[in-house]
Amino acid sequence: MTTDAVRRHDPEIKTFASDNYAGVHPEILEAVALANGGHQISYGDDVYTEATREIFRGHFGDRAEAWPVFNGTAANVISLRSMCAPWEAVVCAESAHINTDEGGAPEVTGGLKLLTVPTPDGKLTPELIDRQAWGFGDVHRAQPRVVSISNTTELGTLYTPAEIKAICDHAHELGMTVHLDGSRITNAAAALDVPLRALTTDAGVDVLSFGGTKIGLLLGEAVVVLNPAAVSGLPYLRKTSMQLASKMRFVSVQFEALLAGDLWLRNARQANTMAARLASAVRDIPGVEVPRPVEANAVFAILPADAADRLRKRYRFYNWNEQVGGGRVEVRWMCAFDTTEADVDAFAAALAAEMHA
Amino acid sequence: MTTDAVRRHDPEIKTFASDNYAGVHPEILEAVALANGGHQISYGDDVYTEATREIFRGHFGDRAEAWPVFNGTAANVISLRSMCAPWEAVVCAESAHINTDEGGAPEVTGGLKLLTVPTPDGKLTPELIDRQAWGFGDVHRAQPRVVSISNTTELGTLYTPAEIKAICDHAHELGMTVHLDGSRITNAAAALDVPLRALTTDAGVDVLSFGGTKIGLLLGEAVVVLNPAAVSGLPYLRKTSMQLASKMRFVSVQFEALLAGDLWLRNARQANTMAARLASAVRDIPGVEVPRPVEANAVFAILPADAADRLRKRYRFYNWNEQVGGGRVEVRWMCAFDTTEADVDAFAAALAAEMHA
Amino acid sequence: MTTDAVRRHDPEIKTFASDNYAGVHPEILEAVALANGGHQISYGDDVYTEATREIFRGHFGDRAEAWPVFNGTAANVISLRSMCAPWEAVVCAESAHINTDEGGAPEVTGGLKLLTVPTPDGKLTPELIDRQAWGFGDVHRAQPRVVSISNTTELGTLYTPAEIKAICDHAHELGMTVHLDGSRITNAAAALDVPLRALTTDAGVDVLSFGGTKIGLLLGEAVVVLNPAAVSGLPYLRKTSMQLASKMRFVSVQFEALLAGDLWLRNARQANTMAARLASAVRDIPGVEVPRPVEANAVFAILPADAADRLRKRYRFYNWNEQVGGGRVEVRWMCAFDTTEADVDAFAAALAAEMHA
Amino acid sequence: MTTDAVRRHDPEIKTFASDNYAGVHPEILEAVALANGGHQISYGDDVYTEATREIFRGHFGDRAEAWPVFNGTAANVISLRSMCAPWEAVVCAESAHINTDEGGAPEVTGGLKLLTVPTPDGKLTPELIDRQAWGFGDVHRAQPRVVSISNTTELGTLYTPAEIKAICDHAHELGMTVHLDGSRITNAAAALDVPLRALTTDAGVDVLSFGGTKIGLLLGEAVVVLNPAAVSGLPYLRKTSMQLASKMRFVSVQFEALLAGDLWLRNARQANTMAARLASAVRDIPGVEVPRPVEANAVFAILPADAADRLRKRYRFYNWNEQVGGGRVEVRWMCAFDTTEADVDAFAAALAAEMHA
Repeated sequence: MTTDAVRRHDPEIKTFASDNYAGVHPEILEAVALANGGHQISYGDDVYTEATREIFRGHFGDRAEAWPVFNGTAANVISLRSMCAPWEAVVCAESAHINTDEGGAPEVTGGLKLLTVPTPDGKLTPELIDRQAWGFGDVHRAQPRVVSISNTTELGTLYTPAEIKAICDHAHELGMTVHLDGSRITNAAAALDVPLRALTTDAGVDVLSFGGTKIGLLLGEAVVVLNPAAVSGLPYLRKTSMQLASKMRFVSVQFEALLAGDLWLRNARQANTMAARLASAVRDIPGVEVPRPVEANAVFAILPADAADRLRKRYRFYNWNEQVGGGRVEVRWMCAFDTTEADVDAFAAALAAEMHA
Repeated sequence: MTTDAVRRHDPEIKTFASDNYAGVHPEILEAVALANGGHQISYGDDVYTEATREIFRGHFGDRAEAWPVFNGTAANVISLRSMCAPWEAVVCAESAHINTDEGGAPEVTGGLKLLTVPTPDGKLTPELIDRQAWGFGDVHRAQPRVVSISNTTELGTLYTPAEIKAICDHAHELGMTVHLDGSRITNAAAALDVPLRALTTDAGVDVLSFGGTKIGLLLGEAVVVLNPAAVSGLPYLRKTSMQLASKMRFVSVQFEALLAGDLWLRNARQANTMAARLASAVRDIPGVEVPRPVEANAVFAILPADAADRLRKRYRFYNWNEQVGGGRVEVRWMCAFDTTEADVDAFAAALAAEMHA
Repeated sequence: MTTDAVRRHDPEIKTFASDNYAGVHPEILEAVALANGGHQISYGDDVYTEATREIFRGHFGDRAEAWPVFNGTAANVISLRSMCAPWEAVVCAESAHINTDEGGAPEVTGGLKLLTVPTPDGKLTPELIDRQAWGFGDVHRAQPRVVSISNTTELGTLYTPAEIKAICDHAHELGMTVHLDGSRITNAAAALDVPLRALTTDAGVDVLSFGGTKIGLLLGEAVVVLNPAAVSGLPYLRKTSMQLASKMRFVSVQFEALLAGDLWLRNARQANTMAARLASAVRDIPGVEVPRPVEANAVFAILPADAADRLRKRYRFYNWNEQVGGGRVEVRWMCAFDTTEADVDAFAAALAAEMHA
Repeated sequence: MTTDAVRRHDPEIKTFASDNYAGVHPEILEAVALANGGHQISYGDDVYTEATREIFRGHFGDRAEAWPVFNGTAANVISLRSMCAPWEAVVCAESAHINTDEGGAPEVTGGLKLLTVPTPDGKLTPELIDRQAWGFGDVHRAQPRVVSISNTTELGTLYTPAEIKAICDHAHELGMTVHLDGSRITNAAAALDVPLRALTTDAGVDVLSFGGTKIGLLLGEAVVVLNPAAVSGLPYLRKTSMQLASKMRFVSVQFEALLAGDLWLRNARQANTMAARLASAVRDIPGVEVPRPVEANAVFAILPADAADRLRKRYRFYNWNEQVGGGRVEVRWMCAFDTTEADVDAFAAALAAEMHA
């Protein structure tokens, strides 16, 4: 018996466009196969989902409740809706993914107002939060209720446990709660060499969007409630947000494969290490500037636009900022769990060649 | 290299609760593995998605545009939102899945009013549609815009091509369009022994929710636009509805495996045949009544509540109607692509035993 | 100083189309003038609104909180939104105004699913409620949370205090709350000769939409919270629902004029008495049938369609049901606070004439 | 016959808090009385509404369609919803009323994403619009569709016809349309001494929120469609947004009184002239700074916080910015149609006294 589907791509080709260009880690796919066969209760009442919930508690503490969903947009919007009454609002960085890259889903689908703050490095602070966290009790102002931060940020930077704790303490003093967009929380924990809970539960975060897809899953993210008092209606919100998988066992078992052992850490370290290697390699190429700290798996670089365009014929990646001036652009290069030393070295060599072309 | 995940279930155990209790067809899983490795553009700009769109056109005609999404709730809600302005409404059977089983997602997330009609068998007709298709131009009435039907219906019944055509002709005369919830459209086509387009494109259906999950996919449904003039904004609606997969290749390649050859037909025939076998087997058991026609892969039965409860200790299935009277309940038994003759025979034997207990 | 506006209508002409065809009671207009001049705090922090809140407490009890809004659609939708989480649903009669005449506002703007029940007379009962009040805790079912009834109903019928109490007791036992659409609650109280609170607070109603417009206000309805534990976020919901008047004093003072004395009762009695007079007058006209009890200010009649059409050339009124058969239609005639005996007698004479034409 | 309502305020007392603290202009109230008596078709099919529509066409051109609504929040949200598909977004100044003062209604009720731009003076320019008007066709970005400007702005500044035309031309080149929040458009036209259409229709504006309440109406704003091709579904959006008045004649006749003659202009000139007088009077008081141009009916002033607080015991007004530093605050003083020279002089004298206290 053989599938009618056909292999249509060259699995040797890697890019530096995004960590979601990567495929599925083999151990994840193996887990999916393991969960296959026979019948299991649908919609999340299966044994794999039960086990996965326990594994999440192992990482995030006894109060943690994990609710798998399909993608990151959903994890964020469902988290925020569970934390906000319909008239409440979310303070976030202007550069936050929820503000810039969800096509407006928080507003359009969630009816959530985002109160944004410009930041130099994608990171909020108590002081920056205060620029929007005011007007409590005034009906003319959408009521600030949640602070949402990303770790790692969209600019490749990291919050330390202490920085997150300071934000959570401040938010809680204001009667607000804290959401962490952890699309790359594994990269953050690996980079800081701390357990996942150090950046979340222990720092006072109330709800986490835990990212699985970018770190090797076929698909799967989870809303992880760390403080049950901060949310309401999650099972209903997940269903009405159209994010309840019928064959849930296949989403859940992927999380088991990722989190039961150290696959999450191996994958995150690999991506981070490759980014560091890439940054080292390109920093020395004349005409290439690395303008932001390389703290996890993203490398930002400023280079001549024409060199970028030539390189792009061989490797796909995105412009981050075309307004740099001087005929230059800022680009973003992401490393994934499957990026190898050879991939990095070949890319750096190609870049060097194009810079000299 | 071995996954940290553990097999937690007995793959020999089957139920008759729902076709979504089944797992992934092996050819589908093989296809997923085939698409793995290396990098592909995310969010649907990959080669597998491109190929899948072409395969859908092969089944549904040159104008067909397929938009994969994660689940059936989403396929329905996104279809309907793409067909309706925010003040427009959907005429459907009272028993329609969109009315009874989506947790209110059409209203809550889609802002859609459903104008429901009671039906004896889950099927609309032009006459039944007219009970709600009126008030055009009256601002006090949500404007009827779409007729939504299901094939097979929630009651296991089938629409023939001629019945669908009569509905579409009527709707179009009224200036309305037609959506088909095809969560089990493959079962319907197999049962009627017609191509998929006979029940959709050729009958005048404007938009189809094509069901993949219940017929053997890991997960995946598709909004298939058959009449592009009937919709607007689909790519944006899919994104803002949080249904755009980043690693889309793995959703798309499953559809390729299902639809490039005859896997969809083999799977649907198997499920349907097993339902017929089951109906035959139980019809003769004294005290068991099969009250509805068995037209595809669902068998409804009326039996004593205590016998049903005893049987349920061995096989999971759902009560459909507990108000039958006389100490009896109506139950629903679904057959899946992986239901075998042995499964059916063992189940029928168990039923017979419980009826004599 | 004279206005540039021009009188464009004949104030002698009355219809029987709807009680909202009437204008403003002179005492209400006088009150508006009284509140004019000088400055008052906007958005409801004025002295008239404060006084009105106290007057509402006088009628509805010490816990009552009144929130004026612009119209009845808004009073209903805001009430229900304040009583429901985003995934919760409302049980109501199929004939309820919120289901049939708001253009879909509860679903479109409120994201509320209505679970409707057919009724013979527009009235729910505990038994009828049970047809939809089930599935608690099942994520696949919109969660029944509120029972919404109308008094008087859309069919001109009345609930007695005992009937409302039975509904409230039943709903509360189910963990649900009760909303009363009181667009014509004053007509109901006058007809039953009971205080307003007998039909609301004392019967266990949680939230009331109190109707002012149809009983003589220029415009103005109020969400009256009788059980504060049943709602949340009302001031924010009113604002985000775009129903917070800036010059609120002019809405509030109308309620003062209506409710501080007995204007509400005088107006309601007049409308009800005129309906009774009309019913008496037309009942004896051969060929005219009064098929429903005349309990407040609505009279339904069945008569030949051509006679109705001829009469309509002289008096505006609406068809209620064109499917009566035998060349007949059912029409609805409403009496208002300003309907006089002369109006009724002239109308009945005109009807008699057209029946003989 | 006398109302049971009681006069509860001193009509001699004026404030400088907001132009919506004022009452109803006597000519408006006279018009309301004129439209009273007898019956008129409800929900806007009356003769006053018909006349008002024609009067709006006289001001704004033959294509203009006016849709009265209750308040400014609604005029703005309904305008924008009629101009945007559910996935489209609105570019506006960060200081825009729709962003800062509607309690989040555009997002919560309208599902609209606002793409905001910081501005020095509340005014957008083509260059500032370009900071957010990009990403067309990218599903990850809410699609910029409408530019929304306010005239006068929230900072008391004015756009000239040429400035508005430049914005409209630019927006139209981008395939976008333009909404003007004209809560104070009459003040703007009076200040510039141009007809209303010079700032709207003739400059290329597509949809106008015309403000009536602040310029002397009891309540009433209008969505005025200047380019019918820019909108869809307005009657349905108005109804489902709960903004369709049943006794519409009383809203419409107010617009007739305002716009049939020159009442709008008299009222606007009075407010503007009083603001100029106020600015002149306070500019010379040592320690008081007037930091923004006084172009219409708003005066912003910076003064010591303690002087402001003492003055506030006698006159109500709002702080605009408490972060000025040096123990000072920026306050906003608004003049209304009923502000007199005596009011201004008394207020200036009171300020001078408090500054010396």
